[in-house]
Amino acid sequence: MSFDVRGDAVVTEVEVRYAETDQQGVAYHANYFVWMEIGRTRYLEALGFPYHRMEAEGALFSVMEARCRYAGAARYGERVEIATQVTALRSRSVAFGYALEAEGRPLATGATVLIALDRERRPRRIPAEIARALALGPRG
Amino acid sequence: MSFDVRGDAVVTEVEVRYAETDQQGVAYHANYFVWMEIGRTRYLEALGFPYHRMEAEGALFSVMEARCRYAGAARYGERVEIATQVTALRSRSVAFGYALEAEGRPLATGATVLIALDRERRPRRIPAEIARALALGPRG
Amino acid sequence: MSFDVRGDAVVTEVEVRYAETDQQGVAYHANYFVWMEIGRTRYLEALGFPYHRMEAEGALFSVMEARCRYAGAARYGERVEIATQVTALRSRSVAFGYALEAEGRPLATGATVLIALDRERRPRRIPAEIARALALGPRG
Amino acid sequence: MSFDVRGDAVVTEVEVRYAETDQQGVAYHANYFVWMEIGRTRYLEALGFPYHRMEAEGALFSVMEARCRYAGAARYGERVEIATQVTALRSRSVAFGYALEAEGRPLATGATVLIALDRERRPRRIPAEIARALALGPRG
Repeated sequence: MSFDVRGDAVVTEVEVRYAETDQQGVAYHANYFVWMEIGRTRYLEALGFPYHRMEAEGALFSVMEARCRYAGAARYGERVEIATQVTALRSRSVAFGYALEAEGRPLATGATVLIALDRERRPRRIPAEIARALALGPRG
Repeated sequence: MSFDVRGDAVVTEVEVRYAETDQQGVAYHANYFVWMEIGRTRYLEALGFPYHRMEAEGALFSVMEARCRYAGAARYGERVEIATQVTALRSRSVAFGYALEAEGRPLATGATVLIALDRERRPRRIPAEIARALALGPRG
Repeated sequence: MSFDVRGDAVVTEVEVRYAETDQQGVAYHANYFVWMEIGRTRYLEALGFPYHRMEAEGALFSVMEARCRYAGAARYGERVEIATQVTALRSRSVAFGYALEAEGRPLATGATVLIALDRERRPRRIPAEIARALALGPRG
Repeated sequence: MSFDVRGDAVVTEVEVRYAETDQQGVAYHANYFVWMEIGRTRYLEALGFPYHRMEAEGALFSVMEARCRYAGAARYGERVEIATQVTALRSRSVAFGYALEAEGRPLATGATVLIALDRERRPRRIPAEIARALALGPRG
């Protein structure tokens, strides 16, 4: 998949799947958190640290907090654009902010806080290289 | 499914499904929002207003805001208890609060704000009967 | 969760979740495979071999084949009963058959074939104790 | 999203989402049916009949049968290619066949049979225009 960099944000896109709709005829609200995760995946990839490689090397991120404010609804087949950026960075945690649009309409804003864990799920410092890249952002 | 009433909360239980785990070996974070929805379903049922009947009668609830703070992790096969209560009530919206435990360990706390919509997804007042039941709570 | 034994089958129940519906207003078809997995989980539990313990001990089951024939549709809030039984047993694989009903109406029949894997995902024999229990069935 | 036409097949791609993995560290088997549905969506789009428009016009497709034979496993971040084609066409139903590859490795083959329904979920003939396009295929 591809992404764009706009300012400090990495922008990617998903298309609403049939499986993601519910009986109200719109995408079920919990799926927005899956989409935000795709935004994070793409963000880390843009920094040069694909998350699947991070986990393989023993640096896991675990979601400590997740929030979404819904401003609209998205229908099957619509393209949802996810703009992701880092909003805070500490030695053991990082916060991401998200802005979602569906076919150009505002859809939602969201935020997540993740902490770094080792393979035994114990808190650890974010590896130095990754912390540096997160501090510099996608243009760094 | 069954539920208990404890104070102002309705308590129900789910068991972590294999499908809900992710490669960290724990339940994927977005599923907590699905579990909160099950808590809401059970809460409305306890009030005597099964949500499927509400929708059939033209009163939809749509999630405007959702938040979760994660305090632990849940594994496949573990029982997750969801305590749900109403935390705020307005003419067109209602807020729910949730406390989740996994096998007795604190798992997460969450909150959602829902607005009432008609079939065309236009905001409407919460039907009077339901508003009254929400105000009285599960012991009302 | 609870289950019943009827003949050679272990019967358990799920309730259709809002998250499982799609824009046709019925449970999305792929969820039936999740329900069958819950049937398997309950079946193995009835034999005294909870699957989460099997995996912890290094015996994984991986789905090699999955089939479902749909005979009806299930709506949000409806109770779906899943009757699960073993239909074939070999040294390295086991086949399960499923009959699903929604509120007493026939919903679907299904089948899955699973092979035993070790932690490195290499085929292995089904552990002797488990093979014996699978051969005897839930009344064994 | 984009697709290619190869022979009688329409080929599209998904990337394995974190949410789609399970505790075995690979994509959970039921998700393959979601991917096949994305293949169908793309196939119908290639014919000029986006499925979301079909439903809006009162022609629903409902899955009557679904099968998958698994030949490998797919990991988070891997690209899965789905080749979709029509394998049988009747007045009221259509069968699709699928071949899935993950990063070039064979992943699975699958099949689904869908029947046409009207808005009240009663069987109906596949609309003539769509039947014609399905008969001609993506090069038609």
